[in-house]
Amino acid sequence: MSEIKDLGEFGLIKHLNRQNSTKHASTIKGVGDDGAVIQSESDVFVISTDMMVEGIHFDLMYSPLKHLGYKSVVTNLSDIFAMNATPKQITVSVAISSKYTVEAMDELYAGIYLACEKYKIDLIGGDTTSSPKGLVISITAIGQCPNDDVVYRNGAKIGDIICVTGDLGAAYLGLQILEREKRIFLENPKIQPELGKSQYLLERQLKPEAQIGAIEFFKEMKIKPTAMIDVSDGLASDLMHICEQSHVGAFIEEGKVPIHPDTERTALEFKLDPITCALHGGEDYELLFTIDPKDLDKVRYMPEVFIIGEITVPTEGLTLHTTGGNIHPLMAQGWNHFDSNQHQ
Amino acid sequence: MSEIKDLGEFGLIKHLNRQNSTKHASTIKGVGDDGAVIQSESDVFVISTDMMVEGIHFDLMYSPLKHLGYKSVVTNLSDIFAMNATPKQITVSVAISSKYTVEAMDELYAGIYLACEKYKIDLIGGDTTSSPKGLVISITAIGQCPNDDVVYRNGAKIGDIICVTGDLGAAYLGLQILEREKRIFLENPKIQPELGKSQYLLERQLKPEAQIGAIEFFKEMKIKPTAMIDVSDGLASDLMHICEQSHVGAFIEEGKVPIHPDTERTALEFKLDPITCALHGGEDYELLFTIDPKDLDKVRYMPEVFIIGEITVPTEGLTLHTTGGNIHPLMAQGWNHFDSNQHQ
Repeated sequence: MSEIKDLGEFGLIKHLNRQNSTKHASTIKGVGDDGAVIQSESDVFVISTDMMVEGIHFDLMYSPLKHLGYKSVVTNLSDIFAMNATPKQITVSVAISSKYTVEAMDELYAGIYLACEKYKIDLIGGDTTSSPKGLVISITAIGQCPNDDVVYRNGAKIGDIICVTGDLGAAYLGLQILEREKRIFLENPKIQPELGKSQYLLERQLKPEAQIGAIEFFKEMKIKPTAMIDVSDGLASDLMHICEQSHVGAFIEEGKVPIHPDTERTALEFKLDPITCALHGGEDYELLFTIDPKDLDKVRYMPEVFIIGEITVPTEGLTLHTTGGNIHPLMAQGWNHFDSNQHQ
Repeated sequence: MSEIKDLGEFGLIKHLNRQNSTKHASTIKGVGDDGAVIQSESDVFVISTDMMVEGIHFDLMYSPLKHLGYKSVVTNLSDIFAMNATPKQITVSVAISSKYTVEAMDELYAGIYLACEKYKIDLIGGDTTSSPKGLVISITAIGQCPNDDVVYRNGAKIGDIICVTGDLGAAYLGLQILEREKRIFLENPKIQPELGKSQYLLERQLKPEAQIGAIEFFKEMKIKPTAMIDVSDGLASDLMHICEQSHVGAFIEEGKVPIHPDTERTALEFKLDPITCALHGGEDYELLFTIDPKDLDKVRYMPEVFIIGEITVPTEGLTLHTTGGNIHPLMAQGWNHFDSNQHQ
């Protein structure tokens, strides 16, 4: 094991960047100066930033560092895709306590670089520092797209169709499984975790992907969603953001919300309602978007898309049309990281 | 006192951004979507990021939150100026433990917004989350400048003149005073801290400024430094970065290094060598730059500039020409945040 203090801050930065290479002509200068330099073209730049804190957003007892690095990049790219832009660069800042070795940092960065390879991202800068306790990762992603292509949350119009790129609730149930196995392990370390049959749910929680395919499809088919957001807090909460900013209402048809069979089965195992997990679970990193009805025929060609509802007048609020034919108000619950009842 | 969990994450973000307004036409969309959007012009973009961690970079026992917010922005802007670019936007991510109230966050953001006002910066996004312990601030700054104006660390040439924009070592001694008064207070809380006569040093530590004037002067006088860096780790360490990346050596004349009278006096009080504080202290946020000798006459018109040495052949390394006529190798010490002997 190599101690980080033997490398020092500058040594660690060099070490972690030794395999870093530039993928975009627009990246003029990456790591190694006071700042990175990006070439301007005729595009606009889209910037997004996220912070992940040990003990709040992840638990290293079940989150491998490589997966964590991967996920921390992907969740940022997801925000750039949600603006209909192409992510090109990221900066990565990491604070680590003295318990972390160089090998642990290598694992984290292996995941970061893997995501950069897969999504063709240049890592152009960052900061590496120590923390009195735990690990903090802060990533800023920079994307580009033609001026007129940016999609905001505020463009949804009455009558627009609400779509989502994939099934919901799986990441939340993946987390429930990991928390359960952790409790069992802490009570009796001899019991081996039972994770085999839950691979899909675990992968959705530990190593999510961002919806690059949807953005490429929009470009190819010349579709511009009227509003878009990524499902990070949960379908209900994220749809509420679109409705608030677009000054509209919306209904979701319960029967149309995509739920994976493993999600359904596991929800029932946990005595949870599958639709509740899908509506409020969060961390799915699917894209939730609205389109003008004239684009509906084109959208049907999307390799993976689910049409789940419609934008309405604002006075109707946010409702769920149940399979039983009832109409329920849809409360946005989402995660509240500041409520200690949810997170200790 | 208002508890943050009563506002929730979305409420807190809205609350902290209620006074946020846009200053640049290039900021098309700020806070409130998945990402911010910046207009591209004929310029390049310069990106810099920094993370500040409670217990490592600051101690809230003597660092008022408003000053801390101000400093965390200024240190990032300093990196953008060090590339000869004009900072225009920042993103701010903050992780806070439950001990922080809404009022405490307001103080922090008052400092952040004050720096944004002074330096004409748009706050365009960020993330607000909880932490199990302490405060972490991560800021990414985005600057712009014409393509040919960017100054890197790697352009210093043999014979170039080494300049610095202001006096050095003051911030380090400010920190020594604060640490001393903290020790005295912890031993006997009845003793009032003796800070009055140290105002200059304390301000340099707690509320530093970034060197916007230098960048404006360069533009006005059509000077382009050959290399530039901001003095954050200490003159010796930062000059070493220029020398390493430019593949050159350098000498500094001890007698030319600017040291404020308060720095000199206080160093002696602490039984420290003033020149050592100036060479290795760090956190001065002055600009250290090299210029072609042909620009020397122009640089003499700079309101505040000190000519402190010269770039040499690489084999000469980094040396200090002492006032006594000796030549000493200049060791880059800088801060090593990972060395527990320096920081607990």
